[in-house]
Amino acid sequence: MENGTKQIWGFRGNEELKIASEITVRGFLNLLMFHVNKDDDRPTVPLGHGDPSAFPSFRTTGIAEDAIVDALRTANYNCYAPTVGVLPARRSTADYLSRDLPYKLSPDDVYLTIGCAQAIEVILTVLARPGANILLPRPGFPYYEARAACSRLEVRHFDLLPEKGWKVNLEAVEALADQNTVAMVIINPGNPCGNVYSHQHLEKIAETARKLGILVITDEVYNHLTYGSNPFVPMGTFGSIAPVITLGSISKRWIVPGWRCGWLIVDSIKGCLDVSSDPATFIQGAIPQILENTKEDFFSKIIYIIREAANLCYERIKEIPCITCPYKPEGSMYTMVKLNLCLLEDIGDDMEFCLKLAKEESVIVLPGMAVGMKNWLRITIAIELSTLEDGLARIKAFCQRHAKNNKI
Amino acid sequence: MENGTKQIWGFRGNEELKIASEITVRGFLNLLMFHVNKDDDRPTVPLGHGDPSAFPSFRTTGIAEDAIVDALRTANYNCYAPTVGVLPARRSTADYLSRDLPYKLSPDDVYLTIGCAQAIEVILTVLARPGANILLPRPGFPYYEARAACSRLEVRHFDLLPEKGWKVNLEAVEALADQNTVAMVIINPGNPCGNVYSHQHLEKIAETARKLGILVITDEVYNHLTYGSNPFVPMGTFGSIAPVITLGSISKRWIVPGWRCGWLIVDSIKGCLDVSSDPATFIQGAIPQILENTKEDFFSKIIYIIREAANLCYERIKEIPCITCPYKPEGSMYTMVKLNLCLLEDIGDDMEFCLKLAKEESVIVLPGMAVGMKNWLRITIAIELSTLEDGLARIKAFCQRHAKNNKI
Ligand SMILES: Cc1ncc(COP(=O)(O)O)c(C=O)c1O
Ligand SMILES: Cc1ncc(COP(=O)(O)O)c(C=O)c1O
Repeated sequence: MENGTKQIWGFRGNEELKIASEITVRGFLNLLMFHVNKDDDRPTVPLGHGDPSAFPSFRTTGIAEDAIVDALRTANYNCYAPTVGVLPARRSTADYLSRDLPYKLSPDDVYLTIGCAQAIEVILTVLARPGANILLPRPGFPYYEARAACSRLEVRHFDLLPEKGWKVNLEAVEALADQNTVAMVIINPGNPCGNVYSHQHLEKIAETARKLGILVITDEVYNHLTYGSNPFVPMGTFGSIAPVITLGSISKRWIVPGWRCGWLIVDSIKGCLDVSSDPATFIQGAIPQILENTKEDFFSKIIYIIREAANLCYERIKEIPCITCPYKPEGSMYTMVKLNLCLLEDIGDDMEFCLKLAKEESVIVLPGMAVGMKNWLRITIAIELSTLEDGLARIKAFCQRHAKNNKI
Repeated sequence: MENGTKQIWGFRGNEELKIASEITVRGFLNLLMFHVNKDDDRPTVPLGHGDPSAFPSFRTTGIAEDAIVDALRTANYNCYAPTVGVLPARRSTADYLSRDLPYKLSPDDVYLTIGCAQAIEVILTVLARPGANILLPRPGFPYYEARAACSRLEVRHFDLLPEKGWKVNLEAVEALADQNTVAMVIINPGNPCGNVYSHQHLEKIAETARKLGILVITDEVYNHLTYGSNPFVPMGTFGSIAPVITLGSISKRWIVPGWRCGWLIVDSIKGCLDVSSDPATFIQGAIPQILENTKEDFFSKIIYIIREAANLCYERIKEIPCITCPYKPEGSMYTMVKLNLCLLEDIGDDMEFCLKLAKEESVIVLPGMAVGMKNWLRITIAIELSTLEDGLARIKAFCQRHAKNNKI
């Protein structure tokens, strides 16, 4: 291709995203900040934000900070978490929320999310199916509209009634709903309205949802931030009337929105969490030190270990009947090995191999089909050498046992 | 509705998600773990994972831990981060990656993500448009297939050639691509194959992409984890041949996958990041302490401040011409106020109000249209009282100035 030829590239942006991203609060605030007159030497007064953490009175409690440091210092939380969240955290979230409920939540009802924002993303994604619609409050929190646009979920708005303390117009809800309506969203205590719904109003909402056969999604990210006559009542109180999904986080009550930790309370949505994943802000704050100060010997020690493991693995696999490794790994943490099924007595494919290996030898290897490669295996080599040796010995015994005429 | 009547609920799961979540590595590993015989008293040998962090030799460097603690202790990182990431972190990421490149990245090229996984999610979402297809390696990392399914992006697979060190079958790439192909993905160093591509092979990949008019997405999450004859060469080296998007993270090199911090290197994808958001694992680890040990006086102090602010705001707004507050807020951190446009001289709507207010008074309030409520304003009250007072005084001056006949 000649220099100067205009190249035509075959990619363009996703249109829905453009629409969705145009309706965020942040977009508006950024635009406004841009319009501040730089010659005005008075400080800008930010009355548009949802994050008071930068103000001295709103500094979070030292206990929360200490908790993070303690967790970090154990080194038990460097690993991937289960997609649903780690058990002690789910348990304490269940306990914490149960204090306000007439029943006790189980840890299994709790899914930890990247702030309440990801809880919103997850639930709207889960509910999206062709033709479905969702009822959102007006005014509301536009992240719902943005995520609905991303999921192609039709949005219908019901009004909150300012003259009635921003109560939900339940007649409007009934008029809007049809057989394709999947859920209605309430935000309580409310953004942007500052409403706190009474026990009675929440019960009526639940009854309306029941009548319509729809879910109630209740955004309680501001739970317990109440200072009027109505105490905070969780919508979950009425979970026996209609199915309720509760969204929340530590962002607002602890004033740590940058910590990105929230929850979604419900069952049967695990599917979405398995395929989803903002880094915690203070991790971002740590990045410069991490990237700039890590000593070379740390990296080289790791490399040394994996290289030893690769050598060991490659040599040992040569001695194992029925599997072959065509390529000694040179990077990352894995090697792919091929199953010679015709040499195996009673094993039909990679999945069966792995299932039996797990069962018989308590060795876990990934079947190739999981990575798009039927009748291969993926073996991880980034592990203690002695453990790797043990595992390979067990794989060998397994293969010898299952080899045709038992002697290759 | 009678007791015992079978209620019909109008929601069902998203089918694509079910398909997508069935093909994750984790799903397979969980299934296999489930098949381990509990009566086998030998320890299970996990050779299927991608996370060695639990093994003593693979504990991360103390420097990384200290960096987190230091960042946390400044209390500067409790806030929401900009959607693209905080500047010092983006700058150091740019510097870090530039060490291996023939040119220098700018912080503006760097988008911080929730691990490399979110970088994958973002780029596949951005590229999805009706009819588009993407070329993925086989074997590969199934999270790509899962995310492509979520975005309804058609997947076409090209083979990696085991007999050629898992090089890309470039003829297959050419045969697969058509005018709807948006990108090809390479993983280097590779998972699951352990390949490390040479300078020459990477150059050929870039040339092929150029010929086809497609992007190269290069997953370099294992960058620098090489221990063979080929050194790690970033695909970005060939960014002048074809457009390259580089994905990576600290997960693998620092062995902290639970910290969920990665990056995407490119321009012009901000739209997607604005609408997206796993909590950092050690935050999850901190949740029990946070939820159980926070003292009541911390909560009540915060409540006290916001209540004072609500009172102040409500009283002051009464004295401001042209805006009215129909409801004194009782919860969360906001109040909605209505603009009486007919009383204003030269202001057409809420957006114009906010723009002029920003410009003239350096006060930021959110136009109601941002939350679905045209010609209203959302005022945040969670802020230092003295600052709130100052802001309200400026809003008053602004309204007096813009009121019809200037004297109401
Ligand atoms: C109503 C509502 N829901 C959800 C969120 C997002 O919360 P988080 O920071 O926990 O993601 C916000 C943030 O302002 C909010 O106002
Ligand atoms: C090829 C590849 N890309 C991306 C990821 C995800 O990386 P992260 O933990 O940074 O999200 C992995 C994790 O195993 C991987 O193997």
